[in-house]
Amino acid sequence: MCCSSLQVNEEVREHLRTPMFDNWQWEEPEMLLLIQTMFVDLDLVSEFHMESRVLQNFLLEVYGRYNDIPFHNFQHCFCVTQMMYGLIWLTELRSKLGRTELLIMLTSALCHDLDHPGYNNVYQINAQTDLALRYNDISPLENHHCAVAFSILAKPESNILKNVTSEQYKQIRSGMIKCILATDMARHNEILNKFRSIQPKFDFNNTEHKELMKIMVKVSDISNEARPMSVAEPWLDCLLQEFFNQSDSEKLRGLPVTPFMDRDKVSKPSSQTNFIGFVLVPLFTEITKLFPCLEQHILEPVRRALEYYCELEKSSKPDKASS
Amino acid sequence: MCCSSLQVNEEVREHLRTPMFDNWQWEEPEMLLLIQTMFVDLDLVSEFHMESRVLQNFLLEVYGRYNDIPFHNFQHCFCVTQMMYGLIWLTELRSKLGRTELLIMLTSALCHDLDHPGYNNVYQINAQTDLALRYNDISPLENHHCAVAFSILAKPESNILKNVTSEQYKQIRSGMIKCILATDMARHNEILNKFRSIQPKFDFNNTEHKELMKIMVKVSDISNEARPMSVAEPWLDCLLQEFFNQSDSEKLRGLPVTPFMDRDKVSKPSSQTNFIGFVLVPLFTEITKLFPCLEQHILEPVRRALEYYCELEKSSKPDKASS
Repeated sequence: MCCSSLQVNEEVREHLRTPMFDNWQWEEPEMLLLIQTMFVDLDLVSEFHMESRVLQNFLLEVYGRYNDIPFHNFQHCFCVTQMMYGLIWLTELRSKLGRTELLIMLTSALCHDLDHPGYNNVYQINAQTDLALRYNDISPLENHHCAVAFSILAKPESNILKNVTSEQYKQIRSGMIKCILATDMARHNEILNKFRSIQPKFDFNNTEHKELMKIMVKVSDISNEARPMSVAEPWLDCLLQEFFNQSDSEKLRGLPVTPFMDRDKVSKPSSQTNFIGFVLVPLFTEITKLFPCLEQHILEPVRRALEYYCELEKSSKPDKASS
Repeated sequence: MCCSSLQVNEEVREHLRTPMFDNWQWEEPEMLLLIQTMFVDLDLVSEFHMESRVLQNFLLEVYGRYNDIPFHNFQHCFCVTQMMYGLIWLTELRSKLGRTELLIMLTSALCHDLDHPGYNNVYQINAQTDLALRYNDISPLENHHCAVAFSILAKPESNILKNVTSEQYKQIRSGMIKCILATDMARHNEILNKFRSIQPKFDFNNTEHKELMKIMVKVSDISNEARPMSVAEPWLDCLLQEFFNQSDSEKLRGLPVTPFMDRDKVSKPSSQTNFIGFVLVPLFTEITKLFPCLEQHILEPVRRALEYYCELEKSSKPDKASS
């Protein structure tokens, strides 16, 4: 990555702070540079005395540990990180949280799917994979993503935390572990309900606010549908490709087939209306209560997407009935 | 292990079912044979169609994965398994629980400390060991013990579960994971309080009764003080030896020193009065409410041990004051 002479111009920099950003226009080396810009712009490089070369090594290592699979690849990692960065700016979290917490959230977003094999936890458990064995069927993927993150940080040449105090390191490690493990969708309701219970009396000075960090990572992780349709729709195709690969493999190996991944059963509109209606809208509604400005940036777009897919679903039904 | 011609006589067999059993009189090959007897006597071999050779291989593999360390060694594993076996007989659990649940409890006792390195979780986390890294500081040892157990069961020649149905396998795996992870003493109060809350309305037919399995494994794990003094006291020396090794290593490496492991601070009586008074008595009291017959077998012996160490502590204090 030779980026010393490259500059991110003002227009790109502005755009990078919004959910409108279009990842499809950028190559991977450019994304690495953009992520580096995020670390600089949030004052993380200065605050935690990161050496520029070490940050670059860290990002290259992270890049190298994402796999070449349809969805959970480095581009997904970039999108989640960019959404986190955008949310931090939109909600003005820089003035509400400490730098340590911003670092935890941005780095968790970046690392949250490291070495994802393209088959989900249910598959890992049913197929009794090495990861399921290692982690006793408890969030095998998320535990692995997190362990890989800290194996990268264990190497001095890519340890962006090497100049923090041991107290700060403990806090960052504990925060990142919680944030990355919170991306297991099997725990979605548990985590959302906990946030829902503290949200009415939310106080940034209360240690309970740390729940917000998990919610921010979760929102970023599943925020594709908050993006413009031209950005979001190719992602849906990538996701379904990964789902279909899994269900094909399940059929081949005689494992239980996950219905929402089965190419013979899934329709794009129905899977989207379910996911947006039952997962995204409730989650985004909750975060919008805390940050009303997010209504226009993420809640309205997903509502529009929900309407769009509901229409599609309706219009496809008569066809099915007549066929 | 050549045990086909050996027989466990009736007297030993009776003794094996009580907390009076003296492990110090037996060699390791004899212990393997005794454990085999427990599997047979609880009808686990017949019920789950275990081949005798496979059970022997399994026990030998388990034996081989305990380390040669002062306390958390194969002898400890034997004692915990024997106490579990004894408790099952004393409480007549054979008529109250299914064979699957007995298998889960006995096998969890057997496997609960596999490959224990002799340094506890706090050490693993502070020293940032490979196990802490792998398990993201979440019960690193217990997660590892459990993963090692299932790596032994993954080999056909030592898989005592190879003839169970896949439904049974799922239940056994899930039960063993919960029981082994419950031995993390950092979760002691959480688990005891949960059991305390369900105990007054306890019902063996309620799925909540599965909490009992965790409690039974926990009781067995820390039951040394319920044994005759002549059996218990050498174990205390073993434990302190392992503690001192850890605190010596902590001092050498500049890690925080765990006070109750520090050879310069620990006295046998004070550490025992604290552990018996604050951990054993409350736990044993709770299980005795469900099984009153256990009062004489485990609660009274630990109360006597508490009195003994309280006396010792009192009589040692004037010495200290005058020195």
